[in-house]
Amino acid sequence: MHYWFFTSPVLKSLPGNALVGNLRNLHYFKPLLQSTKNRPSVETITTLKQDLIKNLGRDSVSDTEAIRKQHSRDEGVERHNHLADLVVWPKSTEECSIIASLCSEKKVPMIPFGTGTGLESGVCAPYGGISVDMSKMDQIVDFNPEDFDVTVQPGVTRKGLNHFLKDHGLWFPVDPGADASLCGMTATSASGTNAVRYGTMRENVLNVEVVLADGRVLHTAGENRRSKKSSAGFNLTNLFVGSEGSLGLITKATLKIYGIPEMMLSAVCAFTTIKAAVDTCVQILQSNIPIARIELMDDVAMDMCNSHNKLDYKVAPTLFLEFHGSEDSVKSQAKFAGEIAAYNGGSEFCWAYESEERNRLWKARHDIYWTTLQSNPGCRAIITDVCVPITRLPDLIAQTKADIQESGIIGPCLGHVGDGNFHTFLVFNPNKPEEFKKAETLAERMTRRALDLNGTCTGEHGIGIGKMNYLEKEMGPVGIEMMKSIKKTLDPHWLMNPGKIFLSDY
Amino acid sequence: MHYWFFTSPVLKSLPGNALVGNLRNLHYFKPLLQSTKNRPSVETITTLKQDLIKNLGRDSVSDTEAIRKQHSRDEGVERHNHLADLVVWPKSTEECSIIASLCSEKKVPMIPFGTGTGLESGVCAPYGGISVDMSKMDQIVDFNPEDFDVTVQPGVTRKGLNHFLKDHGLWFPVDPGADASLCGMTATSASGTNAVRYGTMRENVLNVEVVLADGRVLHTAGENRRSKKSSAGFNLTNLFVGSEGSLGLITKATLKIYGIPEMMLSAVCAFTTIKAAVDTCVQILQSNIPIARIELMDDVAMDMCNSHNKLDYKVAPTLFLEFHGSEDSVKSQAKFAGEIAAYNGGSEFCWAYESEERNRLWKARHDIYWTTLQSNPGCRAIITDVCVPITRLPDLIAQTKADIQESGIIGPCLGHVGDGNFHTFLVFNPNKPEEFKKAETLAERMTRRALDLNGTCTGEHGIGIGKMNYLEKEMGPVGIEMMKSIKKTLDPHWLMNPGKIFLSDY
Repeated sequence: MHYWFFTSPVLKSLPGNALVGNLRNLHYFKPLLQSTKNRPSVETITTLKQDLIKNLGRDSVSDTEAIRKQHSRDEGVERHNHLADLVVWPKSTEECSIIASLCSEKKVPMIPFGTGTGLESGVCAPYGGISVDMSKMDQIVDFNPEDFDVTVQPGVTRKGLNHFLKDHGLWFPVDPGADASLCGMTATSASGTNAVRYGTMRENVLNVEVVLADGRVLHTAGENRRSKKSSAGFNLTNLFVGSEGSLGLITKATLKIYGIPEMMLSAVCAFTTIKAAVDTCVQILQSNIPIARIELMDDVAMDMCNSHNKLDYKVAPTLFLEFHGSEDSVKSQAKFAGEIAAYNGGSEFCWAYESEERNRLWKARHDIYWTTLQSNPGCRAIITDVCVPITRLPDLIAQTKADIQESGIIGPCLGHVGDGNFHTFLVFNPNKPEEFKKAETLAERMTRRALDLNGTCTGEHGIGIGKMNYLEKEMGPVGIEMMKSIKKTLDPHWLMNPGKIFLSDY
Repeated sequence: MHYWFFTSPVLKSLPGNALVGNLRNLHYFKPLLQSTKNRPSVETITTLKQDLIKNLGRDSVSDTEAIRKQHSRDEGVERHNHLADLVVWPKSTEECSIIASLCSEKKVPMIPFGTGTGLESGVCAPYGGISVDMSKMDQIVDFNPEDFDVTVQPGVTRKGLNHFLKDHGLWFPVDPGADASLCGMTATSASGTNAVRYGTMRENVLNVEVVLADGRVLHTAGENRRSKKSSAGFNLTNLFVGSEGSLGLITKATLKIYGIPEMMLSAVCAFTTIKAAVDTCVQILQSNIPIARIELMDDVAMDMCNSHNKLDYKVAPTLFLEFHGSEDSVKSQAKFAGEIAAYNGGSEFCWAYESEERNRLWKARHDIYWTTLQSNPGCRAIITDVCVPITRLPDLIAQTKADIQESGIIGPCLGHVGDGNFHTFLVFNPNKPEEFKKAETLAERMTRRALDLNGTCTGEHGIGIGKMNYLEKEMGPVGIEMMKSIKKTLDPHWLMNPGKIFLSDY
């Protein structure tokens, strides 16, 4: 039995990365191996391929190995080398419905594929089946600027949407860093740096069109409905937000959008301790300052940020902040926040007024993952994603940093501190299994610690394959049973992205 | 067959109200009559009563008719006169679990009862069974001021919680007007005047403890978990928010809380047309002003508001606004909003600076329902609750007002305009069936119009019994099937608050 690390398309373009060899004993992997569920037979796939070509056209179906490989990996550490049997590119909801009907009839798994920017192996195909690449469905299908809503097909990405919205003085603020597809973000319950003010996908999706496993089309809030709130029956929308493709193919999402603030002002402020930075954050939130972004970076992250972006920030625990609003309001917010930071021993704010300067600053923040990899040629990194009540953060980060230091692994820490969510990038050389083991042990300890501190194993990346065993500890047996029984009700043959979030019992 | 209007305890204390007689032909009622599901037998209830007394104590169980009546009515127009067979008062989650196990064993329905301040007959017992009054579970069980979260038992009310939080400089902003219980608000997906800034219950519930129909205890986000965000598996929390007691007994809710803003400033501004007021609201939202409240009242509502509160506001379409933040920020927000209002022909802002003045203003706003009833002694009112995309609001309100005028019915309009949600109080004399019919026809036309305008039949009151037939139109057959199948999975014997949201198929 072999396990592979694949490099993602993005990684391939970075200097110093190489396709790397097999590694044994990935413990995350074990439950999958225990499953008795089999891949579809060659005959089934052959017939299905013909049926799909007949219905979708020859250009929309592929069984080329390179394409199947590309569709079975994301930007995280790969935990599985099983490829889908076919890749299909539907062009409409109707075609998705045909795909689902055909797959359902033949009991073939379906795995939705957006941009492949996920981190928890959500797109791989442990039971084979059909990878459904949604990139050809890339239209903005409804746009209501004065109602602050937009409806997109799954191929529309976050940056693509914001490019379109900009001319209308509007934007969609949920920002996970990567240029993910909006329906992929919906499926993963993504968030990012703006969540402290604008919420996550959970708060910003108004309606979802889904093709269910049997081909039926569901509108989670009713067809074409887009009211800002509703208490009409069960909240199906938020059942599909974060379902990671395991309940259906998301074919449309209706999103809340926002007016671009008159002014956006960013600031950077260094502290002597992580605790002082977190205390500042708590007090800012307590003062009801409608802060748009408040991000923490530790000294290791700041050092990388400086050296790779030709910046000269102090190498110390640092807050990146951003204020949105009218000019007066922004100035007032910033002044108040500055006073709170000073009270906690923070440095003077270092300001970024201009859009270009702000973009450079936030790009430096978002790029730390790539910066980390570039600083360590040939290496990969496990990205952790715990989220805890905010007061638990200083201790958790301190313990984690001590652990990292002791292990000798490189591991910058940074986080959406306003939400209690933080990431570490635990660097390892894939040719050195003992390094991977160390990184994995660190990740496991940190995640178990977060769970002991009333937190979650994933603030925004999802469960995928990588965090299945943590989910059980997090939710407890009744919670897992509930989720499984809902899955079984909506997808009785367990065909939608099987082997993710939790395993089937049969 | 008789149908009854009950007066609620609150209504009883108002002058001019009387318990009123039976009315035939309530069309909402028909589907229930078609159901073949029967009430539990007298023998079943007798045995169950003994079992409950044995487990909970004699004081915790009652079959007195007056108490059963009181527990089968809320503050809305009653659409059913069937009482629960027993009322029980559990004192703990364990006791709730015992109740559910006993009822489940004997296939007896359970109907949760909070404060009875709902509006859609959610507490009545069309199939008999046990009304579970949660008022004895009234403790704040966990409080983490610096993490901005609190966990409450179902007997804790909104005002009670805010009284407790005030001393800590904190508050819970979701404000449906009534002093509802927080778990009742969770069950109904309540919202109210602050939702435009702080969101509804959907955005403010972090975790829910639920006793399922079979007695198992579920923590929707895992036991004791209270991180601000999570993407760990299906969002069970939001499946239970808005489930109206039909999936389980909510025994705890963990809520987001907020710092009390340094300054709160309210303002009132009159316009010549509804459209000008709504345009003002759209532009304020578009400018990203973090407005805390923006409420619309029509001329009829303003007239009532004036005469019953000794106020002298202009009798015209009016916005009530509120700004929260630091002093500088509030002033800046208010100035900017004032400019937008003036641009749309609004009057000068009339300010309420002091807490007492603000409270009087918002009390006048919240009391309009009672004011409406007091102005029309002996009358009741159907309260509508549609919510549409904001640009659809002016036309919908204009058509509705024309309809109301033509009908001769009294019907003030007011709404959470920032969310596109508005209410009318359609007044009728319960001794005049033709008046009720008129009010009901108006409500129906308005609701169907809202549904045609991409809206929902209920922004915040829930479906209960009153809006079941609209839900079908709103969600479509696949949506209803999904909801029913989820219900069946979690509550296979259809015991949790049956006959609400939708009817069982068997």
